[in-house]
Amino acid sequence: MRVALLGCGVVGSEVVRLLREQADDLAARVGTPLELAGIAVRRPERVRAGVDPALVTTDAQGLVTRDDVDIVIEVIGGIEPARTLMLEAMKTGKSVVTANKALLAEDGATLFAAAREYGADLYYEASVAGAIPLLRPLRESLVGDHVHRVLGIVNGTTNYILDQMDSAGAGFNEALEEAQSLGYAEADPTADVEGFDAAAKAAILAQLAFHTPVTAADVHREGITEVSAADVAGATGMDCVVKLLAICERVPSDDGRNGRGVSVRVYPAMIPRTHPLASVREAYNAVFVEAESAGSLMFYGAGAGGAPTASAVLGDLVAVARNVVGGTPGPVEVTYAKLPVLPMGETVTRYYIHLDVTDEAGVLAAVAAEFARHEVSIQAVRQVGLGEEAQLVVVTHRAPDAALSAVVEGLRGLDSVREVASVMRVEGEETPR
Amino acid sequence: MRVALLGCGVVGSEVVRLLREQADDLAARVGTPLELAGIAVRRPERVRAGVDPALVTTDAQGLVTRDDVDIVIEVIGGIEPARTLMLEAMKTGKSVVTANKALLAEDGATLFAAAREYGADLYYEASVAGAIPLLRPLRESLVGDHVHRVLGIVNGTTNYILDQMDSAGAGFNEALEEAQSLGYAEADPTADVEGFDAAAKAAILAQLAFHTPVTAADVHREGITEVSAADVAGATGMDCVVKLLAICERVPSDDGRNGRGVSVRVYPAMIPRTHPLASVREAYNAVFVEAESAGSLMFYGAGAGGAPTASAVLGDLVAVARNVVGGTPGPVEVTYAKLPVLPMGETVTRYYIHLDVTDEAGVLAAVAAEFARHEVSIQAVRQVGLGEEAQLVVVTHRAPDAALSAVVEGLRGLDSVREVASVMRVEGEETPR
Repeated sequence: MRVALLGCGVVGSEVVRLLREQADDLAARVGTPLELAGIAVRRPERVRAGVDPALVTTDAQGLVTRDDVDIVIEVIGGIEPARTLMLEAMKTGKSVVTANKALLAEDGATLFAAAREYGADLYYEASVAGAIPLLRPLRESLVGDHVHRVLGIVNGTTNYILDQMDSAGAGFNEALEEAQSLGYAEADPTADVEGFDAAAKAAILAQLAFHTPVTAADVHREGITEVSAADVAGATGMDCVVKLLAICERVPSDDGRNGRGVSVRVYPAMIPRTHPLASVREAYNAVFVEAESAGSLMFYGAGAGGAPTASAVLGDLVAVARNVVGGTPGPVEVTYAKLPVLPMGETVTRYYIHLDVTDEAGVLAAVAAEFARHEVSIQAVRQVGLGEEAQLVVVTHRAPDAALSAVVEGLRGLDSVREVASVMRVEGEETPR
Repeated sequence: MRVALLGCGVVGSEVVRLLREQADDLAARVGTPLELAGIAVRRPERVRAGVDPALVTTDAQGLVTRDDVDIVIEVIGGIEPARTLMLEAMKTGKSVVTANKALLAEDGATLFAAAREYGADLYYEASVAGAIPLLRPLRESLVGDHVHRVLGIVNGTTNYILDQMDSAGAGFNEALEEAQSLGYAEADPTADVEGFDAAAKAAILAQLAFHTPVTAADVHREGITEVSAADVAGATGMDCVVKLLAICERVPSDDGRNGRGVSVRVYPAMIPRTHPLASVREAYNAVFVEAESAGSLMFYGAGAGGAPTASAVLGDLVAVARNVVGGTPGPVEVTYAKLPVLPMGETVTRYYIHLDVTDEAGVLAAVAAEFARHEVSIQAVRQVGLGEEAQLVVVTHRAPDAALSAVVEGLRGLDSVREVASVMRVEGEETPR
């Protein structure tokens, strides 16, 4: 069984190492040895410890179409040339293992169609939450169940930052700098802190959980750059913690079953400290799944890094190699449900709103009227401070996001409200069924 | 695709319900409808809501050998007639989905051999930790990795009891009675509280994790009936919590890699409150896996119950049905490693020992000498109380269990030790590699 590797960076070099070090185990598990046929890189002159120079080539196109290659591993990342190379590989009868979340979230449909057309395998466990076995359970173990909601911490960088803000009282910039100095955050942290990375993973998770096509562009996305120390303190006061959540929800219709559509979104939100996700610290990832019969499940582990991601790649590689040995590809993605992705305004959630208010009679009445006007019902109001320092903390019941944000707009226009100091969604309750 | 069901109890009736309610989804995921061909039960006269009486039969043997049956689901449990029926089914070309942990742990080898011989699938996700997708990740996702250790809370009844003892300060008998009144424990709780259930699951997990044959009889087993309120209080004093753990460990040899053997054991032990398993409350299950490349992973969810177990059965059923459609069975268990299961005495662990001692000079010297005699090194000693109430708490470094238990025997013989009040193993640290 001959394997071509596209890319030899942090993940790729770990894949090479594991293929060498675990060669005997892998051969026993597959039933035949796995041999590296070639490694395509952009800069062949860069020294790579443990990599046989004779295998290195810059001709990725030539490598993926070679007759003696059975399986292609793609760990280049990005849209092109990764997409073209993977399509070429499948067209010439090869199966593909990839860690490419950006491509799968942007144009997974093209890849899945090619896999189906050419009878190739396309496995991508490593694309979401690194080594945590998550896609296979969703795709296979829960295939006989009905998933209601997926709630995930799928970005280690932002979890590290928010955890520092929570545990050490750091501000966002300070926590970001620390994450950068420890190598948890890139010099340009945009993809992480603005939620792009999490949104791509949310699209992949939603597609698998709901058997419905979802792309990154469908995902409502808010990052964590606006999260303040005051927000984090407010969460603590509510016995909650702020996490950047990727949320994929089936929205029930009035008559039940398959529902009106799906809601897929990424934003910082408060979750109760008693929620299993609340105890996910540092750069760890975890995904909480609520299913009809299985109930609540959680998958926890390292979400990134060369070795964990390579572990996921190798798990897929063994599965694909066994399928090649057996002569039958594994299950192809089924997106038969074709549920619409609902706009954020129709998503039902809860708000925590912290207001600086003037110290005069009738403030609460004016505030309450604003909620009533948009038919948002209040779960709790708490007054904090007195006189010049008077503050109101309001937590709503569940309501459509459009109504909740209209309330916030209305509150900003009230004379008695000096400032809307903090607004944050509250998540992590049982899905109403 | 026609399916025969053996057994229609708590799990079986949920399987029937899900096959009916999710028929459309299941057909879409498999590519063809799944039809129930028959249900074998012992007492056909018992009314079963939602079950077509025309499908019910007492002739299980006839059902599993029928030509028009493709897949057999076994949820009878126990050794016989389950084993004979599953073997007959495979012999006549059917694939099997089972939740039978007792049989797999006692005689899995016979079943796996039959699956291999007849080219049948044998899937059993539901046998360990209910709906938590755990076996498939171990079997498939981590197949390219190297598992060092599996540490699991795999019995909900005992976790509920220990959680009550920890959080409400209840004694064992009181907590057991509460668990019984809530339906978490059976009237005869032996299988749970004596660790038999957990030991069967440990055998299955060890076999998968280490590709080596392990049966329930190989598992060192201690239950929780001896766990006292004093043990639980002692754990709290150590910032630990007592959990009934199923532990499967690869024991490294001096030269590294595959190791001297495996250690598989079930006993109550202290784990640090910061360990992800420590926060697993009530009757939940969770399994913590440490692998070479993937790092630390945890799988959490409901470990028992009709619906969660049925969800796991249906996940397997869809996988098997897809294999039948594709004409190729899935991967068969590989136990190529054939590592020996080491005796408990050779297992390396740590002890927490709580002693009532006399109030005289030289007590500590006598106690320390006993540890030194067996080459057990002490990590910490703490003296509690004074005079007649003098107590010593000793925590050891890692040492072979035989040496640790020899120390305890020796301490019992000392004049200055009035009583060995509590002995408990301490687990949950990083595996030394």
